[in-house]
Amino acid sequence: MREVAVIGVGMTKWGELWEKSLRQIFVETALLALDDAGVDRIDSLIVGSMSSGLFVGQEHVASLLADYLGQTPVPAARVESACASGGLALRMGFIEVASGMADIVLAGGVEKMTDVNGHEATYALGTAADQEYECFHGITFPGLYALIALAHMEKYGTTREQLAMVAVKNHDNGSLNPLAQFPFKITVDSVLSSVLVADPLRVLDCSPITDGAAAVVLCSVEMAKKLKKPIVKITGSGQATDTIALSSRKDITWLESTFQAAKKAYAMAGKKPEDIDIVEVHDCFTIAEICVTEALGLVEKGKGGKAVEEGLTALQGKIPVNASGGLKAKGHPVGATGVAQAVEIVKQLRGEAGPRQVKEAKVGLTQNMGGSGGSTVVHIFERA
Amino acid sequence: MREVAVIGVGMTKWGELWEKSLRQIFVETALLALDDAGVDRIDSLIVGSMSSGLFVGQEHVASLLADYLGQTPVPAARVESACASGGLALRMGFIEVASGMADIVLAGGVEKMTDVNGHEATYALGTAADQEYECFHGITFPGLYALIALAHMEKYGTTREQLAMVAVKNHDNGSLNPLAQFPFKITVDSVLSSVLVADPLRVLDCSPITDGAAAVVLCSVEMAKKLKKPIVKITGSGQATDTIALSSRKDITWLESTFQAAKKAYAMAGKKPEDIDIVEVHDCFTIAEICVTEALGLVEKGKGGKAVEEGLTALQGKIPVNASGGLKAKGHPVGATGVAQAVEIVKQLRGEAGPRQVKEAKVGLTQNMGGSGGSTVVHIFERA
Repeated sequence: MREVAVIGVGMTKWGELWEKSLRQIFVETALLALDDAGVDRIDSLIVGSMSSGLFVGQEHVASLLADYLGQTPVPAARVESACASGGLALRMGFIEVASGMADIVLAGGVEKMTDVNGHEATYALGTAADQEYECFHGITFPGLYALIALAHMEKYGTTREQLAMVAVKNHDNGSLNPLAQFPFKITVDSVLSSVLVADPLRVLDCSPITDGAAAVVLCSVEMAKKLKKPIVKITGSGQATDTIALSSRKDITWLESTFQAAKKAYAMAGKKPEDIDIVEVHDCFTIAEICVTEALGLVEKGKGGKAVEEGLTALQGKIPVNASGGLKAKGHPVGATGVAQAVEIVKQLRGEAGPRQVKEAKVGLTQNMGGSGGSTVVHIFERA
Repeated sequence: MREVAVIGVGMTKWGELWEKSLRQIFVETALLALDDAGVDRIDSLIVGSMSSGLFVGQEHVASLLADYLGQTPVPAARVESACASGGLALRMGFIEVASGMADIVLAGGVEKMTDVNGHEATYALGTAADQEYECFHGITFPGLYALIALAHMEKYGTTREQLAMVAVKNHDNGSLNPLAQFPFKITVDSVLSSVLVADPLRVLDCSPITDGAAAVVLCSVEMAKKLKKPIVKITGSGQATDTIALSSRKDITWLESTFQAAKKAYAMAGKKPEDIDIVEVHDCFTIAEICVTEALGLVEKGKGGKAVEEGLTALQGKIPVNASGGLKAKGHPVGATGVAQAVEIVKQLRGEAGPRQVKEAKVGLTQNMGGSGGSTVVHIFERA
């Protein structure tokens, strides 16, 4: 297998982009990544999108986007693993370059979620769970994470305030990210007094509904050296699954797919949790970030809430988590999220993250999760 | 890159499977492929599905199916390229094995299409076209192929009867395939007197709405030799795109994505059209098979209709096309179709195709197409 580098990244302002179509959002973003990489051709396009069919009535999006990007006849593939579709696009692009099937791959993600009403969006997001045995019986997607939160509070003494602190931290970071959907600070009080969605989760515990895209350009390290671009290598890629329904798990506070995906990525990169300088994780709900930091081995099992309270995961903490603002403040256009995580890590490792720059960041990790942990994709990045 | 072999194939009876769920259809099929391969573990699962979200309200299907197949925590990816999703699953599995990322990959496809009504199915299938500029303005998916048929008739003198002969030939072959949805013969007269769908295409020119799955097990040729299984190698894999909307093409009778994908596959395998003994192509409509045989270089441009009339593509012809019955008679569960084509070619190359066995078949080709030719995946298979 060939070594793989990220040589270009692109992201545009996320939010409720009613004046733009899915194709427009993606193409603008992809062009930024291509400009950043300094290349004008690609050998392959991989696009992560969770549910373009339900959100905008369009499947076959990779073919559509290759066309609108002016890149036909290149191969174009859409990949999907619910909210981990972006991470999967990155992984498939990585494999394609590593295998030698393609020299330059554009891996992107996109979702246009605000063209449907709230009921339709809730239905579409529920397709990430086991619809037949979970959502069709009445539970919503936030409801599944509420069950996880209640179990974590019961088992480990995690507090309602600690959940809120995850949102506060991520909005602190997001206030430094001009591309974030909600680039402003919030307080623990505002989280605790926000509308209840699924007890104990309130609306400020939840990531928003977002329109947005993100893209990265991948090539072999050998080719990257010739292009004389700043090189960030992908040194580890891990993907894993768990039971899709919460009811099938022994312990719903433990994200086995994240643990397994991380284990593979760490092994491939020859790294341990303590070697990681900065991480972007899947905080679709505040409780998710707490469980993820535990499953990644960054904190001890059951201590995720305490770690946030103690500032361990803050921008200036020992292991900064979600410097970009995370899904909570940056937004969560589901198919784009995993790629945007990579965009942030690459910017950080290149020292281009501006006011939210983490000092001495040399090794970064992204964790992108589908459903209530049914699938996870983890990548490890290193400055060359 | 490592050499890749198919060591197991599986397919169950296709049709209107109202008594079975998507997961059940897929798992039964996947177990057949694993049994055929004689392996009890996989390193990765790739599933092609065009629109499980619109058809059964379930995305995240690869994670779901890994779970129901008892294979968690293996990585599982759903891939989509409209009706070419199955071919794309095969290609992604091929790349994963070739790269060394996985030793044994289960590549499958599945679609459960009969749980929605006709209006909803028409809408879902239209998501393969450019919805915003084609279907949202009133054209249906059969309408797009009807335009292609009219143009081909006008430009090359292809006759209404020649279109019908494609359906008759494929039903002749399908009558020999017990797993086909419609395993019976039809006549030119019955095609010509069937209900008009989109002039000049009639209902017997159209592939049906089908529930079904197909699966293959891939591994490196090196490993296949150790397993002492009959080896069919995948020696060529090509994928390409074209403009998604017909209105953007110079000549709508020419399938550029098929031409480009085939060119790559031929080059990788070191083969020419005349080296191919048997092909399975994407006859979603009768006119499609005619255009595809031309774009693959099996017949001269404009001569696809005449080739059928002269029996060139019949089971006993010079280059048998769709020995399985094709999409027309075998059925077309969109995400499964591309994988089922591989299942047929592997059976033919192993000499296990029973009454529809093509003699001396040593090199086979599959062509799986998305939308009205917006994307195509081509593979070449050889008996080792």
